[in-house]
Amino acid sequence: MRQMKKIINDPGNVVPEMVQGLVRSNSDIVELIPNTEAVVRADKESMKGKVGIVSGGGSGHEPTHAGFVGKGMLSAAVCGEVFTSPTPDQIFEAIKASNTGSGVFLVIKNYSGDVMNFEMAQDMAEMEDIPVKSVVVDDDIAVENSTYTQGRRGVAGTLFMHKILGAAADLGASLDDLEALSKQVLPNIKTIAVALSGATVPEVGKPGFTLADDEIEYGVGIHGEPGYRREKLQPSKALVEELVGKLKAEFNFKPGEKYAVIVNGMGATPLMEQYIFMNDVLDKLADEKLEVVFTKVGNLMTSLDMAGISLSLFKIEDDRMVDGLKHEVKTIAW
Amino acid sequence: MRQMKKIINDPGNVVPEMVQGLVRSNSDIVELIPNTEAVVRADKESMKGKVGIVSGGGSGHEPTHAGFVGKGMLSAAVCGEVFTSPTPDQIFEAIKASNTGSGVFLVIKNYSGDVMNFEMAQDMAEMEDIPVKSVVVDDDIAVENSTYTQGRRGVAGTLFMHKILGAAADLGASLDDLEALSKQVLPNIKTIAVALSGATVPEVGKPGFTLADDEIEYGVGIHGEPGYRREKLQPSKALVEELVGKLKAEFNFKPGEKYAVIVNGMGATPLMEQYIFMNDVLDKLADEKLEVVFTKVGNLMTSLDMAGISLSLFKIEDDRMVDGLKHEVKTIAW
Repeated sequence: MRQMKKIINDPGNVVPEMVQGLVRSNSDIVELIPNTEAVVRADKESMKGKVGIVSGGGSGHEPTHAGFVGKGMLSAAVCGEVFTSPTPDQIFEAIKASNTGSGVFLVIKNYSGDVMNFEMAQDMAEMEDIPVKSVVVDDDIAVENSTYTQGRRGVAGTLFMHKILGAAADLGASLDDLEALSKQVLPNIKTIAVALSGATVPEVGKPGFTLADDEIEYGVGIHGEPGYRREKLQPSKALVEELVGKLKAEFNFKPGEKYAVIVNGMGATPLMEQYIFMNDVLDKLADEKLEVVFTKVGNLMTSLDMAGISLSLFKIEDDRMVDGLKHEVKTIAW
Repeated sequence: MRQMKKIINDPGNVVPEMVQGLVRSNSDIVELIPNTEAVVRADKESMKGKVGIVSGGGSGHEPTHAGFVGKGMLSAAVCGEVFTSPTPDQIFEAIKASNTGSGVFLVIKNYSGDVMNFEMAQDMAEMEDIPVKSVVVDDDIAVENSTYTQGRRGVAGTLFMHKILGAAADLGASLDDLEALSKQVLPNIKTIAVALSGATVPEVGKPGFTLADDEIEYGVGIHGEPGYRREKLQPSKALVEELVGKLKAEFNFKPGEKYAVIVNGMGATPLMEQYIFMNDVLDKLADEKLEVVFTKVGNLMTSLDMAGISLSLFKIEDDRMVDGLKHEVKTIAW
């Protein structure tokens, strides 16, 4: 068996050490919430009177979620164990740290554990009279139901939700406004991925799945959940053909429609490849006569050391969404 | 032989396709210089009257250099073929595109081909009466001389030079000011790396070097040039002990000194590991009674799909350097 080759100390202690490293390197942007592995914005003054936005989930997807905490985006992020939902008490602490009197909105990725634990934290908050609302993001179109998930999985399209809600909250939106906005955004974000290799969870020590040296898998999730087809490695243009084809079927593209695009590296895929892939995506969307109004490329929602890429589209039906996407933020990683 | 597993189309065409993808995704920040693989700032208005800062080198180090083009940092970046110096004519085009009448300062990483080609471009510019000055960065302390290099190699510490000079130019420094500043910065930036795997150049199709499944190499360059020792994989704290030890010997640490720190992922190393490593670096520097005044963690100067990490330190002898490091920029990747 291939030995796990990671720059870590104790495989059982990677999350606290990572969070420490992140907070110590970015103390102008985030601070640790005492007795948790959750971080909250350091700019307390500019949080005042605004609704807090809290997200989180299992670790291993860095810079998601802690890298998106800061003015204009998330108020706090809860870092669970690797690929494991954070506990309700940690989420509750993040809610309390984010509430400045106007309530807190939760952005939950659709995994059964996350949904359950965020809902328990919401109950705990409501018992302390903190108003809380939430959205469950299920943007991954690859498969219905999956390991850890009823329905569709929440993946990199969630970043569109973070960005739009964060901008609105920064501009003074109420909890009800944010709920309405989240319902407008949710059906318009969709994602699909392709993996070139599996990810190795430190405490497990071997990849969650393996692919042959010339093999890829379409539709894999960010925890290595199964996709929908394996085949031989294809050129970038062929991958784009397949993935955009799947998205086209979901959105039912019509000429002239506007889209925002995220190309997301899964952790071990160099930026060079992500830009080549984006170049092909933009060609393909131009062929479809779609207008691209926003783009983002990078390692944004990773899966540890997985090689692969995901493509997220956000159909823009209201130009104010573009303003939200472009709204200035001060985060570690957006 | 393991098959090359990359998201590309034609291995001979990766650079133009990458540059296209980058420019099309970030047209608010950069634009392509016609008939080149070089990019220049899109914000022409704010370049006026300022000295231009041009850098570049072989591709495969993304986001270096194009990701650091923008207000407050580089004016233009030249993207050579993978791990290959850009040609003098392309560098000359970048110089012309960056010159608004106040001259252009070149930041060159110390590789024989880069030094030769940037110098030729400098001659071409001077023949057209564009004043040009330059600095050659040689921050890698691992080895003296190396594949492609006389003297020490230029690696991730170069980003400190980009940042400091870019900030000064943005604030109106003259070409002579920038030359003086570069001489102040140069001896105070030092870097050392450790590799966990080799990088595969697309046109070659196999890794430039290989390491056993449990083996690492200290001191490797960003093109896979040899380091100074191979040994069994160590925990993060032991890697930090080794690398900080080498830097300590070079800087001759004295309690109370101030340092800026960059932890740089080589391409395939997850952020989780980079933050764990940074956490250990900060502990170690605290043990040495050094004051850390600036930190940056991420995939900044990569080596394609190499797994590994580099550690750069910048000794701060003048607090205005910290202002330069924190000066606001608008780039894709800083």
